[in-house]
Amino acid sequence: MTAPAEHPEGLDRSDPEAEINARAEAYRNWGRWGEDDVLGTLNFVDAAKRRQAAALVTDGTVVSLTQPFDMNGPQKGWRRRTNPVHTMLDTGTDAERGNQGFPHGIGGADDIVAMPLQCSTQWDGLGHIFDHGFAWNGRRAGDVVTSDGDLVTGIEHAAAAGVSRGVLLDLGRHLYPETGELPDGYAITAADLDACIAAQGATSAVGRGDMVVVRTGQLARAKRDGWGDYAGGPAPGLSLTTAGWIHRTEVAAIATDTWGFEVRPNEFDVAAFQPLHQVAIPNIGLTIGELWDLDALAESCLARGRYEFLLVASPLAITGAVGSPINPVAIF
Amino acid sequence: MTAPAEHPEGLDRSDPEAEINARAEAYRNWGRWGEDDVLGTLNFVDAAKRRQAAALVTDGTVVSLTQPFDMNGPQKGWRRRTNPVHTMLDTGTDAERGNQGFPHGIGGADDIVAMPLQCSTQWDGLGHIFDHGFAWNGRRAGDVVTSDGDLVTGIEHAAAAGVSRGVLLDLGRHLYPETGELPDGYAITAADLDACIAAQGATSAVGRGDMVVVRTGQLARAKRDGWGDYAGGPAPGLSLTTAGWIHRTEVAAIATDTWGFEVRPNEFDVAAFQPLHQVAIPNIGLTIGELWDLDALAESCLARGRYEFLLVASPLAITGAVGSPINPVAIF
Amino acid sequence: MTAPAEHPEGLDRSDPEAEINARAEAYRNWGRWGEDDVLGTLNFVDAAKRRQAAALVTDGTVVSLTQPFDMNGPQKGWRRRTNPVHTMLDTGTDAERGNQGFPHGIGGADDIVAMPLQCSTQWDGLGHIFDHGFAWNGRRAGDVVTSDGDLVTGIEHAAAAGVSRGVLLDLGRHLYPETGELPDGYAITAADLDACIAAQGATSAVGRGDMVVVRTGQLARAKRDGWGDYAGGPAPGLSLTTAGWIHRTEVAAIATDTWGFEVRPNEFDVAAFQPLHQVAIPNIGLTIGELWDLDALAESCLARGRYEFLLVASPLAITGAVGSPINPVAIF
Amino acid sequence: MTAPAEHPEGLDRSDPEAEINARAEAYRNWGRWGEDDVLGTLNFVDAAKRRQAAALVTDGTVVSLTQPFDMNGPQKGWRRRTNPVHTMLDTGTDAERGNQGFPHGIGGADDIVAMPLQCSTQWDGLGHIFDHGFAWNGRRAGDVVTSDGDLVTGIEHAAAAGVSRGVLLDLGRHLYPETGELPDGYAITAADLDACIAAQGATSAVGRGDMVVVRTGQLARAKRDGWGDYAGGPAPGLSLTTAGWIHRTEVAAIATDTWGFEVRPNEFDVAAFQPLHQVAIPNIGLTIGELWDLDALAESCLARGRYEFLLVASPLAITGAVGSPINPVAIF
Repeated sequence: MTAPAEHPEGLDRSDPEAEINARAEAYRNWGRWGEDDVLGTLNFVDAAKRRQAAALVTDGTVVSLTQPFDMNGPQKGWRRRTNPVHTMLDTGTDAERGNQGFPHGIGGADDIVAMPLQCSTQWDGLGHIFDHGFAWNGRRAGDVVTSDGDLVTGIEHAAAAGVSRGVLLDLGRHLYPETGELPDGYAITAADLDACIAAQGATSAVGRGDMVVVRTGQLARAKRDGWGDYAGGPAPGLSLTTAGWIHRTEVAAIATDTWGFEVRPNEFDVAAFQPLHQVAIPNIGLTIGELWDLDALAESCLARGRYEFLLVASPLAITGAVGSPINPVAIF
Repeated sequence: MTAPAEHPEGLDRSDPEAEINARAEAYRNWGRWGEDDVLGTLNFVDAAKRRQAAALVTDGTVVSLTQPFDMNGPQKGWRRRTNPVHTMLDTGTDAERGNQGFPHGIGGADDIVAMPLQCSTQWDGLGHIFDHGFAWNGRRAGDVVTSDGDLVTGIEHAAAAGVSRGVLLDLGRHLYPETGELPDGYAITAADLDACIAAQGATSAVGRGDMVVVRTGQLARAKRDGWGDYAGGPAPGLSLTTAGWIHRTEVAAIATDTWGFEVRPNEFDVAAFQPLHQVAIPNIGLTIGELWDLDALAESCLARGRYEFLLVASPLAITGAVGSPINPVAIF
Repeated sequence: MTAPAEHPEGLDRSDPEAEINARAEAYRNWGRWGEDDVLGTLNFVDAAKRRQAAALVTDGTVVSLTQPFDMNGPQKGWRRRTNPVHTMLDTGTDAERGNQGFPHGIGGADDIVAMPLQCSTQWDGLGHIFDHGFAWNGRRAGDVVTSDGDLVTGIEHAAAAGVSRGVLLDLGRHLYPETGELPDGYAITAADLDACIAAQGATSAVGRGDMVVVRTGQLARAKRDGWGDYAGGPAPGLSLTTAGWIHRTEVAAIATDTWGFEVRPNEFDVAAFQPLHQVAIPNIGLTIGELWDLDALAESCLARGRYEFLLVASPLAITGAVGSPINPVAIF
Repeated sequence: MTAPAEHPEGLDRSDPEAEINARAEAYRNWGRWGEDDVLGTLNFVDAAKRRQAAALVTDGTVVSLTQPFDMNGPQKGWRRRTNPVHTMLDTGTDAERGNQGFPHGIGGADDIVAMPLQCSTQWDGLGHIFDHGFAWNGRRAGDVVTSDGDLVTGIEHAAAAGVSRGVLLDLGRHLYPETGELPDGYAITAADLDACIAAQGATSAVGRGDMVVVRTGQLARAKRDGWGDYAGGPAPGLSLTTAGWIHRTEVAAIATDTWGFEVRPNEFDVAAFQPLHQVAIPNIGLTIGELWDLDALAESCLARGRYEFLLVASPLAITGAVGSPINPVAIF
């Protein structure tokens, strides 16, 4: 058996099933961390990696990688994914007017949010995607995620696992230095990733346990031109053929500034939907970040000539969740 | 004018209004960081403090300080504060059965949450509490927080401000070494805080820009005995008379393992409600953390004989929110 | 084969499975209204029945049979069934203060609700209960109700089907004339129903297409004594053995003033859960109403000496819902 | 003082404030039903009117006037008005698979909805609109609707008030018989209403206590052509100048098949927003229905040559709500 192709030209664009299955089999990590594992590639982050990451903090600057969470976001309701709806339970207007009934001049405001866990900057949990009815580590999907949530690999298990060395790979700037933006539909290859690392220099080296953030520039374009079909439409992103690179480098997580992490339209001439997710999440056990804002980070890295930092992106401990809104911070 | 009393015995228990006002005036930081300030005491954290904090990471261990976010939480509906309701938009059961209509064997799970922003482990934003109709920095409450949310000091402004040196003050263990738990109604004094620092040793020193986490032990009791009235009932917590200590030490934030940060019942013989909040948030500009789980952290600190760590507690960037659910992590 | 017993004494209290199955088989209406049916016993209501119902309006009085929808309701979170959470998007306080930005003096208030469809006065839809993996009319449960809702028998199909002759059977008053309240655990039998009809007189006659509302008095008790375990605890209600009566009378729907329509605890000495639901909804095709307030209606009927009326209880047309909050009205 | 003009040509299009104020003063019903009134023009419906309405039921046909409640609706998020989000708490897929843990073969599905109360077919409550800081009956807006909801005129007070004689005025068909649709921006005048009544014949006579449903045909257009800007964009609707007609006829309520009841754009050359609302709700005390589907009703009326019917449109008893989703039914 030959290894799956690592360039889109090697894909049989008429047969997604075969191309997906080949990579699922080649890169499957089931059992690698035991039968009971709930963390997947987050296991690659060890104490040494976290010490290395913390040691990268030399000037004390924090850059948040979050997009806003509000009604002006990109969601259009696909599969009931809406923008977050934030409403007030108590307001300053009521407090000022004396409507609240509290004693001695105290007043308060309180609020509530209803939001899909994938509405803005987020982690995909391990229960988010299945492959032919199977979830991460070979469990049956219906044993893992029911209407009661993810009973096995809920995101709460990763509560302490969102800390590592982060590395920015600014593919937008690397490949399109004039605009800093990959065009929609651009499939980032393993060779592109390696070339970007080489071009950016030693601080971009990627290895076991690192969390890689790949900037495509699509968000910068959406900020300028409007959301359009940012949530689900054509986008730059990783090629299915990067699955080998992901597996080989043993990165802990990958995040992008796009809705869907991988290139869209997907790389087939027949019906296909997020094939790299299908390989990466249930088979490799990869935690994926989406809808991150990497523009300020890219400026920081460029100005410093340094692409590594302490990354802290802790999921909310929502029991049984298959994803989590986050506010990732890069600390230099 | 004499300084407000720093011990509960000095309080006039019949006159909360006067006691609150005295402290509001004595410790008010309005204008300290300019007319447009939106961060309050979070301004005390500077790059040097963050460098100091990161340098505390010596073994690479992460301890999450979050409580779970689920229906088993403590909320009982007071002012419509419920436990979080997490529901699925898609499940593994449907995916396994082939109900989802996706091609080539991919399946997915997706979810949504509706939750008060104060339902579990959280930061209070600066727009959360008002004093006689005024919000932080002297703004009129009705100009700041309307039905559209906090238009001025929304928690999104603190997106990059949740990183500093954390210090655990384990008052439960310090004052009640046998149980490690303060009784409900115990009012922690400034002298208690100083004595705890002295007892715990040099790694507990508290100063400008630090984020102090005060463990009372009440959560450990609730885990053992059931929630009871954890959400709003009697609890150990800071005395109103610690306002001077908070102001003087110039800490950036304080968090506790209780619902309400300050002692309950409040320290008056007449109607009173969260008087320390009224001084601390709109007047001092203090960011307050509540419902944190400090039990594992206490174990870690005790085992290390070290009470300081890198604390990262980044709020979700919910535009206009007066609080945020968080997953604080302590990194050693 | 003998007909299933019509009195609780005839039940084998050690074998719920057999008792349920016997009634499911004996009273199953699958196919009665064709393969594509989505209404079940609501089909029993025809135009003649509705004309009869409208002709009952002689004095023009309307009695609402709804309980309130608010945070003071009975729900305690069982299976994430909470009380409704109603929040404001805009308020009069903001409007009065001039915070809204509308021209020439107009102001507005707007609101939003998040609620389980079974939180207060409601209809159970046909997709609400399954029997051994089968839904109404013999469809496989997983073909009918997925994470996308009830794809076949969603409550929207009954949008025009909530109108008929209503008949109040005030079992509370009939059996316990002094208090008007059945004790918790009282199992209403077919004989009880017939005796109540006889005692109340000719206006209580029950037949094909009628909607029967059975008052137990439990709600009156809860209003007086507090909710206690109203939502799921012990309650008076219909005995499993009334399944034959329900089938034979060809009523279109039955509603009660309790959480669960049938007697609780259920009538077995071993684990059992809502066995009459299991017979009535997926097998008989019965639409069931729960959490109705029948106290004012009972007063009206008693004062008039008349127990029949025009009943209008139209479900909200929530696409794919397996139940609907309603405000049923009786018109005399 | 002269009476306000009853035709758009009589409006001073440069001065909405004056035009609104003139009508507010001329048609204000404050105090008409006492200081404590919470029903406004719904008080016009008396028992005799309801008897008259019920007597209209001659063939027993029910026509539902509801639009669907789902994610395919017209809402686009204006002021956080979204389409309803309906999610499952339990599914048939889980039940069929045996995931639910219930005994003896019972399974269940349950669901939850989060929806703005104005998202689809609905009544505006009396607390929905204010005029210069005043609510219905002259109350201060901030005394009536706070963050806790409508404390005075909440829609729950109208729980038994949604029953009357309904009259369809099919302005679409009357004015544009070929298409049955008024163009966007068409301002329906008092003369149009009277002419439509005359043309439709005696069964269309409108008087005290009737509920008038005005079909513009815009919804039929949206069904055919897509929503476009149905939620808030240009639309046919009542002219501001119909305020006198509304007041004079003493109708109990008016509903339309549009988002906003009145013509849009509003009839001024300067900034204006829903001026007829401002006159009708807080001053006249009118209950307004929006987003009704009147197409099937129009067919029914045309086929019968009869435009009157029993209308039952009972609001959900959501405590403190300023509106309610409904499923109005016309019974012939």
